[in-house]
Amino acid sequence: MSQSVNVCNSNVDAMPVDVLYHLGISTDTMDFKKAFGDVKFVVLGGSHKRMQKIAEILLKEFKYDLPVGTGLSNISCTTDRYVMYKVGPIISVSHGMGVPSISICLHEMAKLLHHAGATDVRFVRVGTCGGIGLDPGSVVITTSCMDCAFNDFFQLKVMGKVVQRPAELDEEFVRGLVETAEQMQLDFTVAPGKTMCADDFYEEQGRLDGAICDYTEAEKMAFLKKAYDLGVRNLEMESLGFAAFCQRLNIKAAVICATMVNRLESDQLSTPVDTMHMWQERPLQILIAYMKKELGMSE
Amino acid sequence: MSQSVNVCNSNVDAMPVDVLYHLGISTDTMDFKKAFGDVKFVVLGGSHKRMQKIAEILLKEFKYDLPVGTGLSNISCTTDRYVMYKVGPIISVSHGMGVPSISICLHEMAKLLHHAGATDVRFVRVGTCGGIGLDPGSVVITTSCMDCAFNDFFQLKVMGKVVQRPAELDEEFVRGLVETAEQMQLDFTVAPGKTMCADDFYEEQGRLDGAICDYTEAEKMAFLKKAYDLGVRNLEMESLGFAAFCQRLNIKAAVICATMVNRLESDQLSTPVDTMHMWQERPLQILIAYMKKELGMSE
Repeated sequence: MSQSVNVCNSNVDAMPVDVLYHLGISTDTMDFKKAFGDVKFVVLGGSHKRMQKIAEILLKEFKYDLPVGTGLSNISCTTDRYVMYKVGPIISVSHGMGVPSISICLHEMAKLLHHAGATDVRFVRVGTCGGIGLDPGSVVITTSCMDCAFNDFFQLKVMGKVVQRPAELDEEFVRGLVETAEQMQLDFTVAPGKTMCADDFYEEQGRLDGAICDYTEAEKMAFLKKAYDLGVRNLEMESLGFAAFCQRLNIKAAVICATMVNRLESDQLSTPVDTMHMWQERPLQILIAYMKKELGMSE
Repeated sequence: MSQSVNVCNSNVDAMPVDVLYHLGISTDTMDFKKAFGDVKFVVLGGSHKRMQKIAEILLKEFKYDLPVGTGLSNISCTTDRYVMYKVGPIISVSHGMGVPSISICLHEMAKLLHHAGATDVRFVRVGTCGGIGLDPGSVVITTSCMDCAFNDFFQLKVMGKVVQRPAELDEEFVRGLVETAEQMQLDFTVAPGKTMCADDFYEEQGRLDGAICDYTEAEKMAFLKKAYDLGVRNLEMESLGFAAFCQRLNIKAAVICATMVNRLESDQLSTPVDTMHMWQERPLQILIAYMKKELGMSE
């Protein structure tokens, strides 16, 4: 049985017009059912340019023919908060950096798909991260998330009070990605593991190279070692809020990230940009193989 | 006596190279002293396009002549995380949405100015926000910040433990902006007031139009009324982390925002885009008048 994208807010269906401000679109100027009714996957990543590039790769990989004289066009072009592309049943959308930034994108994407009547939609974050104990360029498929105080739940403040929410990814989706990777002949490491989600790139992640650093190198290493021993294999900045949001809405979600650095050896991202760009395509390789299977397309 | 931009991290001076990854620049490929040694103001705002436009306005207002055949160029052009422009002693840089996003920008801007040997630098966030009890298009100059649980301190997790930091803006800088506005003939309201800083656009700010909404309209109004009674005049998503960071580094900081909506009357941002763009220039008008005085330039 197909599952709609529901929102946990009865006000939404009663609104005559819904302005998705940060996506730059509105229900009164666009036919959401026609435009987005067929969506099955929403691929999210931080960077505008990367999500545009991913859309171009998807177009090629899935062999969707665009009418002659047309090309991919940014659906969110009237704003610069996010970019959004659509390739067949797949949306590629940027979410900026950090949980607050991705949370705005998620609220508006969920409402978009709800208005569109889309069914059986999966959300997947394809990101970059710092790895722990993995060669740079490895891929981590997140099994569960925690914050930088080792809590496995998400906290936000609602009506002035702190609320805690579970933040579990979809087991079947995660297992599907892991199994897909196992079946591929990949020349890089793919590690299922826990992901630590930080609200900051420098201090929360224990980097020694920020403008503020109140701890020693030994303390940093003890912190990362503790995380590693708990099963953490990477640190990034969105997974926990992403998982909590999707779980609340019963949207199947997964996170798959490429590591740009091994934090046990370095803090700075000083690898040549071209190499990092090549690494960034690795999670996508796995995701594309998975989506082809799920969408019933031949390899 | 002039005050350098110090960092609270002795590692920084010992690093042979510092890659400011998210700003897309590095100390080994750019002479920071030559490029940024004269900076006196860093103007920060969320949107890439707006910060480019602000740079263009500053260029005109401050009558800086660029060599024939040249124009403003994005210093951070090798990345798409932020954009950065420099107009004389003023930097215009985007910070994305939310505290985690602005925090990365702040760490790297502070290190940039530290490496450059810049002195007496002030940071000012020029943003958009939701107002409480003010006509849309009003300007709020922040006197102090709080989070969405009414705490006036900033919290982050360092080495796995929650740390609290004071988050006070610079009194003199704030007063200077308020006095400048008072001396101008402005056709809009300028209100000094407290600012509530949210980690989310929808739930933390009590909006009724998100994908998740666990409260009634009456509860929303009681929450906003409580904030108003405590002196809060606007809600945005960066001030608290911004203030805490700058205070820790002894950087004089202020926040001045245009309200896009009166949250006592509406949640949606449905005003025509052109009108909102016009409102967004209002804080800048005041800031430009202030900077002209401070930089010893005639009106």
